[in-house]
Amino acid sequence: MTTSITIFDTTLRDGTQGEGISLSADDKLKIAQKLDALGVHYIEGGNPGSNGKDIEFFQRVKSLNFQSKITAFGSTRRKFSLAEHDSSLVRIAESGVPAATLVGKSWDFHVHTALQTTLEENLSMVYDSIAFLKQRGMEALFDSEHFFDGYKNNPEYAVAVLRKAQEAGADWLVLCDTNGGTLPGEIHEIVSRIRQELTAPIGIHTHNDCELAVANSLAAIQAGARQVQGTINGYGERCGNANLCSIIPNLQIKMGYDVLPEEKLRTLTGTARYVSEIANVNMPVGQAYVGNAAFAHKGGIHVSAIMKDSKTYEHIEPELVGNKQRILVSELAGQSNIISKAQSLGLDINANNEQTKAIMDHIKELEHQGYQFEAADASLELLLRQAFGEPVEVFKVESFKILVESSKGQMNSEAIVKLNVDGKQVYTAAEGNGPVNALDNALRKALVQFYPKIEEIHLSDYKVRVFDEKDATAAKVRVLVESSNAENTWSTVGVSSNVIEASWEALIDSIRYALLNMEKANTAPSDFNERIGVVNH
Amino acid sequence: MTTSITIFDTTLRDGTQGEGISLSADDKLKIAQKLDALGVHYIEGGNPGSNGKDIEFFQRVKSLNFQSKITAFGSTRRKFSLAEHDSSLVRIAESGVPAATLVGKSWDFHVHTALQTTLEENLSMVYDSIAFLKQRGMEALFDSEHFFDGYKNNPEYAVAVLRKAQEAGADWLVLCDTNGGTLPGEIHEIVSRIRQELTAPIGIHTHNDCELAVANSLAAIQAGARQVQGTINGYGERCGNANLCSIIPNLQIKMGYDVLPEEKLRTLTGTARYVSEIANVNMPVGQAYVGNAAFAHKGGIHVSAIMKDSKTYEHIEPELVGNKQRILVSELAGQSNIISKAQSLGLDINANNEQTKAIMDHIKELEHQGYQFEAADASLELLLRQAFGEPVEVFKVESFKILVESSKGQMNSEAIVKLNVDGKQVYTAAEGNGPVNALDNALRKALVQFYPKIEEIHLSDYKVRVFDEKDATAAKVRVLVESSNAENTWSTVGVSSNVIEASWEALIDSIRYALLNMEKANTAPSDFNERIGVVNH
Repeated sequence: MTTSITIFDTTLRDGTQGEGISLSADDKLKIAQKLDALGVHYIEGGNPGSNGKDIEFFQRVKSLNFQSKITAFGSTRRKFSLAEHDSSLVRIAESGVPAATLVGKSWDFHVHTALQTTLEENLSMVYDSIAFLKQRGMEALFDSEHFFDGYKNNPEYAVAVLRKAQEAGADWLVLCDTNGGTLPGEIHEIVSRIRQELTAPIGIHTHNDCELAVANSLAAIQAGARQVQGTINGYGERCGNANLCSIIPNLQIKMGYDVLPEEKLRTLTGTARYVSEIANVNMPVGQAYVGNAAFAHKGGIHVSAIMKDSKTYEHIEPELVGNKQRILVSELAGQSNIISKAQSLGLDINANNEQTKAIMDHIKELEHQGYQFEAADASLELLLRQAFGEPVEVFKVESFKILVESSKGQMNSEAIVKLNVDGKQVYTAAEGNGPVNALDNALRKALVQFYPKIEEIHLSDYKVRVFDEKDATAAKVRVLVESSNAENTWSTVGVSSNVIEASWEALIDSIRYALLNMEKANTAPSDFNERIGVVNH
Repeated sequence: MTTSITIFDTTLRDGTQGEGISLSADDKLKIAQKLDALGVHYIEGGNPGSNGKDIEFFQRVKSLNFQSKITAFGSTRRKFSLAEHDSSLVRIAESGVPAATLVGKSWDFHVHTALQTTLEENLSMVYDSIAFLKQRGMEALFDSEHFFDGYKNNPEYAVAVLRKAQEAGADWLVLCDTNGGTLPGEIHEIVSRIRQELTAPIGIHTHNDCELAVANSLAAIQAGARQVQGTINGYGERCGNANLCSIIPNLQIKMGYDVLPEEKLRTLTGTARYVSEIANVNMPVGQAYVGNAAFAHKGGIHVSAIMKDSKTYEHIEPELVGNKQRILVSELAGQSNIISKAQSLGLDINANNEQTKAIMDHIKELEHQGYQFEAADASLELLLRQAFGEPVEVFKVESFKILVESSKGQMNSEAIVKLNVDGKQVYTAAEGNGPVNALDNALRKALVQFYPKIEEIHLSDYKVRVFDEKDATAAKVRVLVESSNAENTWSTVGVSSNVIEASWEALIDSIRYALLNMEKANTAPSDFNERIGVVNH
């Protein structure tokens, strides 16, 4: 019998405390749907009394038929008052959700300093508030704030708080490392002791201030906790909450706990990327398990070993979490990287024929000029396809021109482009916030009449790097452009001593790549995401 | 007596395996200087036989008088050959560094699959290679690749490999979790056993594929390892290496080990940010200890508790690692750094007067717009001098214009600038390899008649960073320009949604800074280098 672990997702509540993260009610509903599909057991939606967005979320979520339990969040009642007179608690009870989490103090220092009340009154606040939810027929989770700091300072009091919550009927006692300062060994020891003193099931809620939130969550589970609270991609205040995208596969694949059905675990990478899109926060490329580089290989020796057996440099099969192996092409790597890349595109390449040698020489020459394909998979794909005689141009560029003027602090940027699309000349102009933006605008304006879907593509990142520093502003620059649509992300590269020309080159590659894949999608729709997937994820 | 832990930094070697990270020899030397100032014990520079950049690094680093030991990296000798005939080992011995790390196989599976040799031959490869370094009078570290996977699969063989290295005289046995798939409990158990079987000091080298690299490093130290290998900001292949920026404060502040002198630990945040600038990789805002949001508090209950006592929501004092508390509603940060900077310029500033408050408000506003002065000391100096009423303008800009044309693959860039120097209008034009180069050329052409020494200045680096990624090519960019003359280097910043405008702003600051210091040099020549030195390094 494997032990089951309950996953409590608080992306929509604690996750939104992260800097730069702001979710509308619509965003929250979209994310909740993905979380339900992923199979997490609880989805904390927010505080139904706190603001309009959360009120709207709780109203609209009722009509969705989720497997996951939606939970509301609130605090214990105000000091020296009655729970049934606490408007926040009443709104939780009336929000229509089956479960709620109430946060309460367990660190005596906080009771004195932040709450400014007595230790006895805080115990009553915990008891009354949990009892109120139970009387209203709800499942009640007690989030014991700063539990570990509290326990280290005054273990008797911290345990007394938990015992009050348990007496009031709390279904879960969740121990929070609110400030994120506790180490895994301490977590293990304290959770073990609590398990001996109390009978209610234990949850763990950690923060990443020491870069230990994942390890701390695992340590608590090993000590007997049975619920983990965390967020997708580790979003949250300061350094973030515990990252469920790492905790879930660690518990399930590495430690043998029963967390999610196998087929749901395979949607983890897609879920992480979807949530990052909705939250409008770039995912770190090296994020564990679900990052774009989590199973990417750059070094030549590593790649040649990977070709013999993936287990040589991969700790799990990436498909278990819905991710994919990627072979990066770089100065450090040999021929084997490019060959396996071409093979993944279905191109007939091998180490021995003449054509392969010609392609290698061409790529080497481009790398010598400063191109870098490791972060520009889409440009490399265009290059390889072209070398194999596939048509990749889509449209011709006849000319472009930009003009930037500054006078008395006023800036003005405009671009003029002349293209040839299917034998038809298109000549148009646009303004922009800067020359590259003006070029991008003019290019889209010229193409949208032929390819309306171009509107679904947006540029998600733009990087410029001077790589030949001897000549400074006359030196060569490399521009990397990353573009996205709803499901995919691809990257392209341009190189020139002229930043405008390099940007233009990367822009053109990006749009050609997208249009080529769109065209193919029209003839074989099921193939598109798969192919983009192979290339990019 | 506290226990000392040795820090081995591999940012310049394993860190450059990270996706999108590419460092020139210059970049590597700059980072090495910062690492030396931070006080890490070893700095792994790269492989002196592998490529031109690393060869240049090892040649140039000799003349720098570092406290940190510079180490070279390589592999054990090729199978069935002699160590003294191995050109890579010979180059390491001849590179002039006092210590080297050799990586060797300890997982029998890898010996068969990747190396394709016998277990016995691999043992000889380890022995011969380490013995070769010792015969050449070097300190030898043995990186035991995939040690934990190897130990789990065949503990006798994994230990036999270590024993061979020890017999050959290895000064350190470094246990590597190369694939990053091991859990903290396993690390603790295996390191504890190894400590009982071998006498050479143990190091730990982990990767972050399970988001556990920091916890794994700490677990190894608790089990008796005495060296941690890792990188600044956790750069490295796939999910990265163990992040020294989290490990060092965890070991020192939380666990009481002796790692760095206290005053050096206070440079940790500055080091992390400097390295991210040089590597041209955005730091995650919530990075533990050193991130911009690591001690940031979003309004409400947390902030009011923080105002009563920061300990309520901060696990350490941020100043211990050189970071700062930030209150997102009313920003109070940065003041002490700027005050100490102004004082070093001889400006009469202190925390209490009105003028200081006005300067702080102005800098805060600029930072809010996206300026960053950490890597742009010259711009900050101009700003501070101006705030104290010193004349810093030197010349006035009336207007500028650029035109870039591309037709049939031919690019043409020209710039027209109108300046006012000492009441005299100068109106001139120049061409360039790109718009920024054309602007730079036009600017110099306009000024050289007044300041002939401008010819001695060159732009040594030019970096562009998109920092507001939501709008891609319409987003704001920050340009950092680094300029040098024979003895000095200084950096300036410009911010705009227009890359041309941002570049122009940084160019103008750079030249103004140089001209101001040249003028001063005429009256007090001995002062110039000293002052520039204080400002930039």
